[in-house]
Amino acid sequence: MKSRGYAVHDKKSPLIPFSFERREPGANDVVVEIAYSGVCHSDIHQARDEWGGSIYPMVPGHEIVGHVTAVGGAVKKFKVGDLAAVGVIVDSCRVCENCKADEQQYCLKGAVETYNKRDYAGDVTYGGYSNNIVVNENYVHTISPKLNLAAVAPLLCAGITTYSPLRHWKVGANSKVGVVGLGGLGHMGLKFAHSFGAHVVQFTTSENKIEDAKKLGADEVVVTKDAAALAKHTGSFDFILDCVSAPHDINQYLNLLRLNGTLCLVGLPETPLSVAPFSVVANRRSLAGSGIGGMNQTQEMLDYCAEHNIVSDIELISVDKLDEAYERVLKADVKYRFVIDMATLPKG
Amino acid sequence: MKSRGYAVHDKKSPLIPFSFERREPGANDVVVEIAYSGVCHSDIHQARDEWGGSIYPMVPGHEIVGHVTAVGGAVKKFKVGDLAAVGVIVDSCRVCENCKADEQQYCLKGAVETYNKRDYAGDVTYGGYSNNIVVNENYVHTISPKLNLAAVAPLLCAGITTYSPLRHWKVGANSKVGVVGLGGLGHMGLKFAHSFGAHVVQFTTSENKIEDAKKLGADEVVVTKDAAALAKHTGSFDFILDCVSAPHDINQYLNLLRLNGTLCLVGLPETPLSVAPFSVVANRRSLAGSGIGGMNQTQEMLDYCAEHNIVSDIELISVDKLDEAYERVLKADVKYRFVIDMATLPKG
Repeated sequence: MKSRGYAVHDKKSPLIPFSFERREPGANDVVVEIAYSGVCHSDIHQARDEWGGSIYPMVPGHEIVGHVTAVGGAVKKFKVGDLAAVGVIVDSCRVCENCKADEQQYCLKGAVETYNKRDYAGDVTYGGYSNNIVVNENYVHTISPKLNLAAVAPLLCAGITTYSPLRHWKVGANSKVGVVGLGGLGHMGLKFAHSFGAHVVQFTTSENKIEDAKKLGADEVVVTKDAAALAKHTGSFDFILDCVSAPHDINQYLNLLRLNGTLCLVGLPETPLSVAPFSVVANRRSLAGSGIGGMNQTQEMLDYCAEHNIVSDIELISVDKLDEAYERVLKADVKYRFVIDMATLPKG
Repeated sequence: MKSRGYAVHDKKSPLIPFSFERREPGANDVVVEIAYSGVCHSDIHQARDEWGGSIYPMVPGHEIVGHVTAVGGAVKKFKVGDLAAVGVIVDSCRVCENCKADEQQYCLKGAVETYNKRDYAGDVTYGGYSNNIVVNENYVHTISPKLNLAAVAPLLCAGITTYSPLRHWKVGANSKVGVVGLGGLGHMGLKFAHSFGAHVVQFTTSENKIEDAKKLGADEVVVTKDAAALAKHTGSFDFILDCVSAPHDINQYLNLLRLNGTLCLVGLPETPLSVAPFSVVANRRSLAGSGIGGMNQTQEMLDYCAEHNIVSDIELISVDKLDEAYERVLKADVKYRFVIDMATLPKG
């Protein structure tokens, strides 16, 4: 099947138009015509080979929404014309204990990621900066037409990445929750934690994000260079969601956790974190991590968002502005997620 | 009340005989004549001021067993002649949420440690390298006469420090558990995990501890310099108890945890640990810490030990051999805990 998209050809090149082939849809496959594709920080990491092992040419993008244009004969969940969404993974082994537990993202065989990976047949996967995608229906989600479609796209990575740990650690009305960093992930974590009824404290390095954080649902905002404001919260949090991708002092946040509290990393800094043993031994704290969510939980999250009218705050861009968008993501100069309007993709 | 013990007078001096005063027992106090006192690695850290803030002269020792020689008028749990034990803390505020939850070790006011601290009246606390101690009965435990009294002493720190996290993280018959380090803490962790029915893998740097570990209950022993032997266990552990006090590579153990697995630090290295974010994000792992246990749980542990005939493996020493014992602890040359026979203390 012919596809068109934007690709990087090595770790230093810009994104340019690229034509490529996708597999013909099989009996269980859904073809999605992509309307919008979010721009995730991990797209940049992989385009620039910052995690190693990148496969070029690469078509990034794993926050995908659009309409179904064809379905295989055995597909049950979708028909032509339906709205559909694809996230970070497009396949997993389906038989290991983690797959069976609806934790396909931790598949023991290794889940197939939406781009920059090889699928189980050995073919390279290409992501959402393109006009269409072919995915087994088990890895495609339904979306409510009630929501702004472009603003739904980031839910497929930024949304589920923050929703899943908040659910796993049972954040609710009696929780005091911290969200560290107000970017693509952080603003979704803030919206969800607020929606779940928690008392939410947003941590930010930037004084000019205080008003925004309050509008997004923060009960309190702490500017992290203010050591006294941080110290006021020592030993008080049930849960902290750390959405920062850059190196930072993790002990100053661990020390804010109460007895049995957990700080969960979702931001993936490139360098190791330095953890003082006393930071976790005191108050029996945990430093945890979490990656996206399972397929059922992703659908649950999308349904929750439809019910509670939650979407990402986005800046819609044309596909030829991707290089500029990458530079602005690196400067945290976006409120709060770039989404590509795929109608701007050059015709064949 | 007159007391005699062994003290250090600054961070570089040997332990020498020392006479001092303890408070007269109040209505709720128990006077314990100390029969045996364990030698914990943290005694050395504090005697040498390696954690900072040491108060001299210092009488270390927080693994204390002996007999009751006097009780205050309001004491209910003890009578003269009873066996009794005192551990790492001798008081806490009793009214904070952690004290009320029987987690006095995490008292929000700060628990009063058995030595090298000031109690709430402002008096310096002196530990178990001495002939007697005066403690509020709420912080004194009962001991079964069935067990070897000298070998019970290390249960008060090494025992509860390993028992508590194994209970907190619900280690049982279906658990695969790793124990890192076979020293004072590690050998107790191994005994408890084995007793709880877990499949236990002992990790050790030393080939000549393999047979010992098996005798103590290990189902498997991995010598940690054997990378292939480590790799065989990747992603397979429910829980790992890390008992190592020296700096070490924590990521190689985090990578052995399965989905939702926890590695718990009880060893307290002096330098920060370097944690790769992917080590916790993969498999949604947690790096946690834990310190001793609450007063009820400490009693539960002592009762469990009496029922299951569990004590520490010890080397009994006379009090004048303490400096030598410290040097041997630092070389991990003890199987597995030194205990001082307090009958060897010079008479006034």
